[in-house]
Amino acid sequence: METIAKQSGASLTIKKGDRLKVTAPKGEQVSDMVLFNKNDIREKISSGKTLDFEESILISKGNFLWSNRSRKMMEILEDTNGRNDFLLAPCSPETFEIMYNNKEYHPSCFENLYTNLAKYDITPDDIPTAFNIFMNVQFDTDGKISVDPPLNSGQDYILFEAKMDLIVGLTACSAEDSNGGTFKEIEFEVLTSNQ
Amino acid sequence: METIAKQSGASLTIKKGDRLKVTAPKGEQVSDMVLFNKNDIREKISSGKTLDFEESILISKGNFLWSNRSRKMMEILEDTNGRNDFLLAPCSPETFEIMYNNKEYHPSCFENLYTNLAKYDITPDDIPTAFNIFMNVQFDTDGKISVDPPLNSGQDYILFEAKMDLIVGLTACSAEDSNGGTFKEIEFEVLTSNQ
Repeated sequence: METIAKQSGASLTIKKGDRLKVTAPKGEQVSDMVLFNKNDIREKISSGKTLDFEESILISKGNFLWSNRSRKMMEILEDTNGRNDFLLAPCSPETFEIMYNNKEYHPSCFENLYTNLAKYDITPDDIPTAFNIFMNVQFDTDGKISVDPPLNSGQDYILFEAKMDLIVGLTACSAEDSNGGTFKEIEFEVLTSNQ
Repeated sequence: METIAKQSGASLTIKKGDRLKVTAPKGEQVSDMVLFNKNDIREKISSGKTLDFEESILISKGNFLWSNRSRKMMEILEDTNGRNDFLLAPCSPETFEIMYNNKEYHPSCFENLYTNLAKYDITPDDIPTAFNIFMNVQFDTDGKISVDPPLNSGQDYILFEAKMDLIVGLTACSAEDSNGGTFKEIEFEVLTSNQ
């Protein structure tokens, strides 16, 4: 089990068949996740392909996460909370400046993703729309979006299985509105396919 | 006025301040649009940033289309039909193979975008989730997506204003289900800011 401190990030590689478990031990905390093909970083997680193939805006247990090359990157084996978002881009410095008029430095998932992924030659422009684990984005049939406090408790977890060798970027999200106003750590664990 | 033949595509460049008008003269036809910064193709249209900043799944008159660098690429000045989709990736060969079990060659927006954009050094992997003009994607509050026949008549149009110099990729969409079962042409017109 590894810990991602509040408002920070991590990266790792996992092999096809490995399982990745993500939890927020104090609850009410979002984790942004991006995926790249370990052998060719130009293949990466795609919200548009995932929503298309899964025919759903909400992605949970039984759904797959697809790449821009229309290949399965992960399967969601378990999801005890059941609410994740795949609509919104990772929070970035501009999120806080444009939406909240914050002109000061503010940690962001975008920065925490690209800094942790730089060692794989992944640059800021390469960061796609993330799969936002535990993020509670509500919407009505007119399309109006609201970002509500996440509903996950400390016991909730999501379990993925890799369908190809992957580079994974993960964060403990830095946006006040996405995390019920306070920031907590994220824990993750890789269960290798040899276990 | 220029015509995009059914199941094909086009590309063009427009300058900041230029306006782009898109119509389907026979109605009931979708056009996929992607945008790149003309001076740096690594900046491109982002569904995640647009849905985030506009706080809506449905993007229409008065909304902006944003880039992955959190900058405004276009403003929608007019939209007489009022239904566009920014959830689903452009149809690709895999769309027809995976979702419709079609093993034969099938024209696709993905191919029509990357072939028309190749002259700007834009490759297949660079194609993002497109802004799907006139596409009638319906969804419920459980997130279930359905692709319904488009509602645009031959008189409907959408008018964009460029907020930076842009490379634009446009298609006459090739997916049966997105276009009421038949394929029609798309027309577009650039109104330069000097006019």
